[in-house]
Amino acid sequence: MKINRSAHNPLIEAGDVAPSRPDFQVLGAFNAGVAQLQDETILLLRVAEAPIPDRADEVLVPRLNEAGTEVQVERYDKNDPGYDFADSRFVAKDGQTVMLTSLSHLRVARSRDGIHFEVEPQPALFPEHPLEAWGIEDPRVTQIGDTYYITYSAASARGVGVGLAETSDFRTFKRRGIMLPPENKDVMIFPEKIGGKYYALHRPVPKSFGAPEMWIAESPDLDHWGNHRFLMGLGEQGWDSARMGGGAVPIRTERGWLALYHGADSSHRYCMGAVLLDLEDPSRVIARSRVPVLEPEAAYEVNGFFGKVVFSCGALLLDQTVRMYYGAADEVMAVADIPLEDIYNTLV
Amino acid sequence: MKINRSAHNPLIEAGDVAPSRPDFQVLGAFNAGVAQLQDETILLLRVAEAPIPDRADEVLVPRLNEAGTEVQVERYDKNDPGYDFADSRFVAKDGQTVMLTSLSHLRVARSRDGIHFEVEPQPALFPEHPLEAWGIEDPRVTQIGDTYYITYSAASARGVGVGLAETSDFRTFKRRGIMLPPENKDVMIFPEKIGGKYYALHRPVPKSFGAPEMWIAESPDLDHWGNHRFLMGLGEQGWDSARMGGGAVPIRTERGWLALYHGADSSHRYCMGAVLLDLEDPSRVIARSRVPVLEPEAAYEVNGFFGKVVFSCGALLLDQTVRMYYGAADEVMAVADIPLEDIYNTLV
Repeated sequence: MKINRSAHNPLIEAGDVAPSRPDFQVLGAFNAGVAQLQDETILLLRVAEAPIPDRADEVLVPRLNEAGTEVQVERYDKNDPGYDFADSRFVAKDGQTVMLTSLSHLRVARSRDGIHFEVEPQPALFPEHPLEAWGIEDPRVTQIGDTYYITYSAASARGVGVGLAETSDFRTFKRRGIMLPPENKDVMIFPEKIGGKYYALHRPVPKSFGAPEMWIAESPDLDHWGNHRFLMGLGEQGWDSARMGGGAVPIRTERGWLALYHGADSSHRYCMGAVLLDLEDPSRVIARSRVPVLEPEAAYEVNGFFGKVVFSCGALLLDQTVRMYYGAADEVMAVADIPLEDIYNTLV
Repeated sequence: MKINRSAHNPLIEAGDVAPSRPDFQVLGAFNAGVAQLQDETILLLRVAEAPIPDRADEVLVPRLNEAGTEVQVERYDKNDPGYDFADSRFVAKDGQTVMLTSLSHLRVARSRDGIHFEVEPQPALFPEHPLEAWGIEDPRVTQIGDTYYITYSAASARGVGVGLAETSDFRTFKRRGIMLPPENKDVMIFPEKIGGKYYALHRPVPKSFGAPEMWIAESPDLDHWGNHRFLMGLGEQGWDSARMGGGAVPIRTERGWLALYHGADSSHRYCMGAVLLDLEDPSRVIARSRVPVLEPEAAYEVNGFFGKVVFSCGALLLDQTVRMYYGAADEVMAVADIPLEDIYNTLV
């Protein structure tokens, strides 16, 4: 496998991103959707922020107020026995997550060469609805004609659902509502209609039984989705045996739709793999990676806010090379060029 | 509250239903969808069956084979320490449900007077797809024109999703696919278009955070659903504070759409209540029950396969009286007539 990680990795770090308000700090800029707009490469970053603490023994929780109009910061005592603060990403109570310790929004970064990015000073999409009260995360961008469709995780006390938005210029955005209800994430819309219908991969997380696995759905109009079918499940052992979900928007190749997806094992080590889907019937799996395409190995992948994670939300096909942009360690953005042939070689 | 339980309750019991094969026994006939077809009242029953055991120390698990073509029975030793058999409804492993101990199908029962029913000798809809491998459950029936649309829970190792089927005569049925992915249940389609769109109530169960609460979605065609909005959440305390979901198909009244819904408290006691939704915009809650409309009190409601449960999947409006059909104790069917005015009096 010839993985060519950029010498400029990480491409974007927390320090490159201005916080949305002076009393907040940026914890990470990662898991970006990718688009090509004229001669620019666009990264639509997930920017995770948290209030700057002024005391070590308190936990600050940022979230929208009930009306969805304003971010408020709640203060909790780290020694409060009613809550569990062991995982710095969230606050738990009775074994259930009840709050997140950061609030994510989406931010545009632009580049002429696909490597050197300029991050815009203001958010592109900021939580503004009660169903986004805990943040919006992990966007995927699909270009169809001149319109870019953005799916994102909308988190709130009601669970994590999937929001849909659109833009034509990455300056103004229009929300189109919640396209899939909780719990669902990792939704990528295919870049063209197939047999007259739109398709999307999605990743529900059922509670009573079942696992975080990949499904496919159809739509006449991108807003309404149906004919949900199970696509592929956890690996029996190894890198994608504990959880999985779509990654980059599927890329049309001669052999089929190439969908890069993430998988994790029981130690929460996230890798990227690939699945090849039938061009005419994308609910049909042709082959999937036996071994990962990309594993967390570089220092910025292994160490960080949540280490041992590579997580792609977008990739470009440049001739016979896949340029995979990916979040590393839930903190920074990186890129790697991987020969298409080497990805094919992981498939069985 | 003038609850008039029928003197003929339970209307249908397990013994009234022939098993689908001679080596199976019927455990319950309950949670039926309701329809009026010409001069008949139709109950579309959930019939739960299990293999007849021949040894006390084994647990038999019925489910479709991988291809979805045939029911197979697997045998487990009750003393196997790898599994947890404590709850007779399912088999657990490492705290997660991994199998159900019964397999449900849907069966038609017909009546001229709405009280005395004749149960058909054969299943109407039987599991026949890998996503139905653990059974199909809890149907709701909505008549639109001459077509009856049936939503049902489709259970499998992939989770519980929502299947859609249709019929015009309750003799032949056509499946239309999975309309909502796991985990979701308790879906009822409104009986007419509102502002040019179909509407449905649904009840997702998110895993990471969030609760089993009620949502509403829209559709142009009944197959594809979108614009998912949160409708109403758990009560702060009392009868509907632990879980809730839609019950009967909403009934048009002068005051709004009357939707009977179920709620349970932390002791798993299931009651029925009501919510009134705006006639023009059913995502707007006008009022909901402060106290239950129906509570498990009769012997057949308190005792049974899973006691202290009343659970309605369908009701009829007869002049100013709601005739609520309901499953009792996850085992039998019952009916109660309740003055509309008394239901209104529970609303705040």
